[in-house]
Amino acid sequence: MRLIMKTEPRTLAGFMELLPDEQILFNQIKQKIENTYKKFGFLPLDTPIIELSEVLLAKAGGETEKQIYRFTKGETDLSLRFDLTVPLSKYVAKNYGNLSFPFRRYQIGKVYRGEKAQKGRYREFYQCDIDIIGDGELDIINDAELTSVIYTIFKELGFSDFTICINNRKILNGLFESIGQKENSTEILRIIDKIDKIGKEAVIEELAKLNIKKENIEKIIEFLEIQGTSNEKIEKLEKLKIENETFKLGLEELKEVVKNVKLFAVPEENYKVDLTIARGLDYYTGTVYETFLNNYREIGSVCSGGRYDNLAEYYTDKKLPGVGISIGLTRLFYKLNELNLIKANKKSISDVLIIPMVENLEIPIKLATELREEGINTEIYLNNKKLKAKLKYADKLKIKYVIVIGEDEINTKTINIKNMETGKENKIKLDAKQIIKELN
Amino acid sequence: MRLIMKTEPRTLAGFMELLPDEQILFNQIKQKIENTYKKFGFLPLDTPIIELSEVLLAKAGGETEKQIYRFTKGETDLSLRFDLTVPLSKYVAKNYGNLSFPFRRYQIGKVYRGEKAQKGRYREFYQCDIDIIGDGELDIINDAELTSVIYTIFKELGFSDFTICINNRKILNGLFESIGQKENSTEILRIIDKIDKIGKEAVIEELAKLNIKKENIEKIIEFLEIQGTSNEKIEKLEKLKIENETFKLGLEELKEVVKNVKLFAVPEENYKVDLTIARGLDYYTGTVYETFLNNYREIGSVCSGGRYDNLAEYYTDKKLPGVGISIGLTRLFYKLNELNLIKANKKSISDVLIIPMVENLEIPIKLATELREEGINTEIYLNNKKLKAKLKYADKLKIKYVIVIGEDEINTKTINIKNMETGKENKIKLDAKQIIKELN
Repeated sequence: MRLIMKTEPRTLAGFMELLPDEQILFNQIKQKIENTYKKFGFLPLDTPIIELSEVLLAKAGGETEKQIYRFTKGETDLSLRFDLTVPLSKYVAKNYGNLSFPFRRYQIGKVYRGEKAQKGRYREFYQCDIDIIGDGELDIINDAELTSVIYTIFKELGFSDFTICINNRKILNGLFESIGQKENSTEILRIIDKIDKIGKEAVIEELAKLNIKKENIEKIIEFLEIQGTSNEKIEKLEKLKIENETFKLGLEELKEVVKNVKLFAVPEENYKVDLTIARGLDYYTGTVYETFLNNYREIGSVCSGGRYDNLAEYYTDKKLPGVGISIGLTRLFYKLNELNLIKANKKSISDVLIIPMVENLEIPIKLATELREEGINTEIYLNNKKLKAKLKYADKLKIKYVIVIGEDEINTKTINIKNMETGKENKIKLDAKQIIKELN
Repeated sequence: MRLIMKTEPRTLAGFMELLPDEQILFNQIKQKIENTYKKFGFLPLDTPIIELSEVLLAKAGGETEKQIYRFTKGETDLSLRFDLTVPLSKYVAKNYGNLSFPFRRYQIGKVYRGEKAQKGRYREFYQCDIDIIGDGELDIINDAELTSVIYTIFKELGFSDFTICINNRKILNGLFESIGQKENSTEILRIIDKIDKIGKEAVIEELAKLNIKKENIEKIIEFLEIQGTSNEKIEKLEKLKIENETFKLGLEELKEVVKNVKLFAVPEENYKVDLTIARGLDYYTGTVYETFLNNYREIGSVCSGGRYDNLAEYYTDKKLPGVGISIGLTRLFYKLNELNLIKANKKSISDVLIIPMVENLEIPIKLATELREEGINTEIYLNNKKLKAKLKYADKLKIKYVIVIGEDEINTKTINIKNMETGKENKIKLDAKQIIKELN
């Protein structure tokens, strides 16, 4: 007998690790997102989690850089990816000659940010991204198509009361230029991006700290408070008569996106122009999106993204404009679960559990093999326990159909198949095809 | 115009990053493995890639520990997982009260080992694992079931000429005990595990270095050279009359596994007893498996595993015996690709490409939406290019069905659907249901 010091088995704070029933649910949601991405023809991509720091941080800076998991192995300075956009930039620059443009890719994978640990904040989390990258140019209608992807996903996930909010960064930038605040654009955007969280008064206060004249702050607030339907907002923007080329271009783009969203069969109630949406990240240059569950706006945006002029400018001279969206799945899952908007109800992925009560397992195992060959997820209970213990397992795992096979069943070549959800039992032939008929 | 210093976009050596066509193929293989695992009723698990070093390395040592990606973040000593077995041990010990036993789980995920970089060796690679964990005990028939999983996977992947080699560590250990070499067991196992690579003479030489008597080395070699069918080998083992309890128990287990493998419909030609299989890892205590593609034995084992008495002894006093297998998918993919045993032939996951040649995209987009609603992966070419450029895109991506929609098509409500593989074109109604009929 060896004596072994026990280590307490624990998982790091900020790292999600689920029990099987929740994992099944998580995977179902992930699968629905992936299937939707594929339905729109996006190609799969899987980049390494570890990259050279020099490559990964070619651009980074500020908050992001502080959160990076960065370390050396041997002589090499390495970092864990903190999003899927930078690896995409690297990939497209590196493989430019081997890709067909527009390059439409999806990537679903884990990313790492050493954020302050708190409930519902994750340091390892899944991002589910799609991007469409053009070679030199990319028509604005692609921006509209992405709203259709967002709409399809949230419908697939069982939601109907959600809103895709659309804005255009050029409108905001143009407005700031027109009031002589071009230099402060990024800072102003960061502030107004928070209006939902901190409120109008706090935004005014923060803007004042930038030494913006009171009349210009009023202009910004007046702009943010434009109300009405999407078309009414666009009309009001036109009436502002802001003589700035960036503003005008942004307004044209926004009109075009809104016009095209209709073509993609996204219902009126599921999207709107929202002039307060800015997306703090400074690489967006045109359309920006955020998506809210209307009754749970406090969750924040459940799917965000936007248009950028130049995906890979830190790696190549090629101009690669793109548009993309991202779903932070780990946090979304946590929040939906917390709000009871999703519920783990499958504890097993088996459709059928076969419980043998005989010495010779030939017939039960043969049946399991035949069911699997027909595509039925089938488990056979293989431990030599009393029937009661076996049924308890079936009950705990909530496998829908249970078949007990004893001497009687083998002699009479008939079985009882029990639907554990309804309690209904049917006596049928001991035959895979007959059983499959029962399942449908 | 900003001036930006360009960083060369590169990916770390030893990290696989595929072009889309190969990624599609890789994902297909991964999906087939996952589907097979699900068909046998294994539950999904997804543990973090980062763990506390103290937890992850509770046991480790030797070669493995040197290869670990280990670093600190803040004050915390962290490591990247180097396999999926240690995280499973931690998980089962941690969640013991919330799991149903036998606990059958699959996990497919990336693991990290800082091996010397060389062709075909990866530092980041996918492992595809299943394990069955018993609470206190686990019947030996489970060991036979796993051969059925291995068989199903390689059939699914299109192979028929492969052999699952089965052995039992107790037979080897008992043999060593019987010649007074119990203390050297681990070392002897490591040596004979290499017999395939280094040959018999080198094994004899290495064994001699352990100061094992010549007559005992002869016994080991004689044992390793036992020939015949699985049943003949078992008979010859019985005739050795080795009076050692461990040996006898191992032989009983091996007989039982071989007897049961037949029940699981694994054909005779796809498995055999192979007494040279040892699996160097010292946590195996009973059945061990390796799987070889018969015409490509130089690849090494494509699926390995075995039985262990005590999964989580470093974390809990509970006795948790288990049996599991693992496929190193990244290396397998590399090797199969290198040998031309698999071939990327899909460059797209879209089934249909719609090419609009009209100003008003309403009808083409509506058709794309309808096809997607029917589950067809559909892409619509949205950039305003000449027909020639659009067809070039279709050709490069090799999307199977192409539909061009111009004014004529809209006016006559008929389209040509072209099968790009056969070149065949059919004139049909501009209608999603009609098009879907064409696809089948």
